[in-house]
Amino acid sequence: MAGVVVQKYGGSSLADADAVRRVARRIAARRNSGDDVVAVVSAMGDQTDELTALALEVNDRPDRRELDVLLSTGELVSCTLTAMALNALGQPAKSLAGWQAGIHTTSRYGRAQISSIDVSPIRRELDSGNIVVIAGFQGIADDQDVTTLGRGGSDTTAVAIAAALGAERCEIYTNVDGIYTADPKFVPAAHKLDEIGFEEMLEMASYGAKMQPRAVELAMVYNVPTYVASSFTETPGTLIHEGADNMDENIDGDRVGEVRKKVRGIATDKGFVKITMLGVPDRPGLAARVFEPLSAADVSVDEIVMNAGSDAVTDFTFTVTGADLERALEVVQPMTEEMGGRGVVSTGGLAKVSIVGTGMRDEPGYASRMFGALAEHGINIELITTSEIRITCIVSERHVGDAARALHAVFELG
Amino acid sequence: MAGVVVQKYGGSSLADADAVRRVARRIAARRNSGDDVVAVVSAMGDQTDELTALALEVNDRPDRRELDVLLSTGELVSCTLTAMALNALGQPAKSLAGWQAGIHTTSRYGRAQISSIDVSPIRRELDSGNIVVIAGFQGIADDQDVTTLGRGGSDTTAVAIAAALGAERCEIYTNVDGIYTADPKFVPAAHKLDEIGFEEMLEMASYGAKMQPRAVELAMVYNVPTYVASSFTETPGTLIHEGADNMDENIDGDRVGEVRKKVRGIATDKGFVKITMLGVPDRPGLAARVFEPLSAADVSVDEIVMNAGSDAVTDFTFTVTGADLERALEVVQPMTEEMGGRGVVSTGGLAKVSIVGTGMRDEPGYASRMFGALAEHGINIELITTSEIRITCIVSERHVGDAARALHAVFELG
Repeated sequence: MAGVVVQKYGGSSLADADAVRRVARRIAARRNSGDDVVAVVSAMGDQTDELTALALEVNDRPDRRELDVLLSTGELVSCTLTAMALNALGQPAKSLAGWQAGIHTTSRYGRAQISSIDVSPIRRELDSGNIVVIAGFQGIADDQDVTTLGRGGSDTTAVAIAAALGAERCEIYTNVDGIYTADPKFVPAAHKLDEIGFEEMLEMASYGAKMQPRAVELAMVYNVPTYVASSFTETPGTLIHEGADNMDENIDGDRVGEVRKKVRGIATDKGFVKITMLGVPDRPGLAARVFEPLSAADVSVDEIVMNAGSDAVTDFTFTVTGADLERALEVVQPMTEEMGGRGVVSTGGLAKVSIVGTGMRDEPGYASRMFGALAEHGINIELITTSEIRITCIVSERHVGDAARALHAVFELG
Repeated sequence: MAGVVVQKYGGSSLADADAVRRVARRIAARRNSGDDVVAVVSAMGDQTDELTALALEVNDRPDRRELDVLLSTGELVSCTLTAMALNALGQPAKSLAGWQAGIHTTSRYGRAQISSIDVSPIRRELDSGNIVVIAGFQGIADDQDVTTLGRGGSDTTAVAIAAALGAERCEIYTNVDGIYTADPKFVPAAHKLDEIGFEEMLEMASYGAKMQPRAVELAMVYNVPTYVASSFTETPGTLIHEGADNMDENIDGDRVGEVRKKVRGIATDKGFVKITMLGVPDRPGLAARVFEPLSAADVSVDEIVMNAGSDAVTDFTFTVTGADLERALEVVQPMTEEMGGRGVVSTGGLAKVSIVGTGMRDEPGYASRMFGALAEHGINIELITTSEIRITCIVSERHVGDAARALHAVFELG
């Protein structure tokens, strides 16, 4: 039996009809090499943004159910065109919308999660000799409503299908040729990684690298080797796989050089706002009281910092993306007043700079080297958050490039 | 219980976001008057043509299954935007794709017919107090494939839903303010009809008036009064209903004046090609032998003329639309050769001019007056076809305006 490969092509790889034909040639070449191919496609170019803008023209707060159906059309267009382009190359191919491909999701419009995949429609088409082209980013909820998976959701579609099919691997084709030690836009010395572990990639993706964190998480849970490469070149990309996470245990042979650099990469992400509720009563249940209404208002709270002082009042700080600022303030301003707090302050234009690496686990000293490097460059730290294998500093967006370059140098990633 | 009204809005009424908002205001006004409203919408402006052009960029003979999914996205965009625009007016509204609205069709892609409608999803939303906005022109076949109903298919969606719901009436809103005695582009003296019968409208629509004949047929079979009017003005439109067909029996009162003019209208339609297979053997089964492979090649044969002569050979003539010419010739050229015929000739740039009216039934003399009027204007007739209540002459497209004006005058429709 031939293996199955799942390939995903992003919107920048499908900008126009010529690009669709180019992608079809790549898919056909993969099919001709012997494997069954399932291709997952995103909407062409900026179509998702254009459809969103159109929705905002008729309603400045569009219903999320309607918005999801609207946005899902972008991928329907690209998957049918890709199937047609494959036909033109003599390849039998069939498109499937999310609901046709058996992709069941939760019903949280705009940010739905895949709950299960019934692979029988995909299997049926593969067994008939078709290349299957699936509309990414979308699925169907229990009530037959179309849902979307949020930004970058097509990555998740691809990994989930690869897991459900037991595919050999998932290939994510995009406009960059892999995962870099840092964003080359900020750090000219950044270089591409040949491989990276799931855990490290999950932190990188969650803190700014361009892959949906949920996709990495799924790949990790189902152990799907995932290859990220350019759809424009034949340059080798980056393989995300289990083995690469444990390289710090593998201190013999070729990898020694890499192991010594225990930071694997620098992640950067922009567009955050810090919101502080000043002088609110420091009582048990404060966090729940704040975050339940924020969640109900569909505000995605990012990082949370609370310093319980010795006083009866405290300052309560959290971050959100710029897009959620207005909705967040609508919730916390009246709440702070009601609680007898001193007011709400928000600071926009913030960015995160993170160092990530499994080698940092149980190794002290990374934090102080990081803070030292930032201090040396006169970069003020607004907030700090950490995980076992990551340290993140929130700084002004103005400083994000300087910070990334400084950290890339100090941790010898060049 | 409030009545239900089905309204349909065409693409020219939904050209951009402003137009969508305007349509939403009209739907909301209808809802506020007390009736439940189901709105069926076409794709915005020229979107169907643009999507078709995009398909042809990647494949000059796109697979029809894929093309149907692609084209169906146009109506998904317009129905979600219309629902959002209704929400912005404070009206609860929900969009349904064809497959969500229970619109089951045959699986003849691109020209599918509605086979049944399960109205329970629509009823459920109406019962919840929603205005239901349905993507026209599309449905779902037994194999879960999305299908489209062909040009003007949204008219059919609207009438079929009105019939299935037992709606009071179906309202077709478009860019013209009703059904005219002739196309005003050709005949300045043409005037709008206040009413017209189903049979007459079916002939008018089949021979060029802008409404899908299948929609008229459904309205006739299920006796759904159908009102055609402008979405841009409040000018009264034309009511298509059963009573109006029998006006020639109703010779008392106000209608006498109209009854005397037994031709109700002039229909015109362009873009035809006449194909003649010369000198083919005149044997039983000839027609079947010609039309089966044409049908298999998805060529829609329009009119057929065969004069069985006294010879053993005959000329076999039929018409198709310009779009089908190439596919038709690919079938009949080798076939004519194989049959030992003398060759195939085709004449393009043809148009149909028809006179329609139930008053013509069993009344001789209309044909000769029609042919006489055309002869008087030096217009050559290529083919003639008739029904009980219609006479059609196929003429050169160059003459279609002259012919329509001449007939409008001679049958005193001005």
